[in-house]
Amino acid sequence: MNFMSFFARRGESASVAKNRLQILLAHERMGDGSDAKLISELREDILEVVRKRMNIDPDAVRLEMDRSGDITTLGIDIELPQTKN
Amino acid sequence: MNFMSFFARRGESASVAKNRLQILLAHERMGDGSDAKLISELREDILEVVRKRMNIDPDAVRLEMDRSGDITTLGIDIELPQTKN
Repeated sequence: MNFMSFFARRGESASVAKNRLQILLAHERMGDGSDAKLISELREDILEVVRKRMNIDPDAVRLEMDRSGDITTLGIDIELPQTKN
Repeated sequence: MNFMSFFARRGESASVAKNRLQILLAHERMGDGSDAKLISELREDILEVVRKRMNIDPDAVRLEMDRSGDITTLGIDIELPQTKN
């Protein structure tokens, strides 16, 4: 499962970059093919709300999408330089 | 770590409720106490954008927040009755 390796990586990188936000979405498929579109839309929405609260360098955002069995997962890994408030 | 048990539970419940969205936020602390506030605000923002795309029963949303070491995690587990689009 991809989301396990996602968090395994988190541990490795913790000592390198101390200020990070990681977001993981996992969606069980509805069988009508709408899950990938939904996850993609939620990714945009969530990145937008995060941008309202933090200064995010686009180059500091790493995305990883995985489809495995009935589950679609999206990992968003953001390095945070500073908060806005 | 709490987020591991979060996903362990996911596997157990997969056969019970097939249409779910799970969102996990993990934030490494900034040392100024702002992480809990930030995670709480992001939770509200993210639930709002999810509600724009799906009909969510408030009773079908389960939240779990955990602080462990330098990491604050928030798990949002949503049962989805149907999509809006």
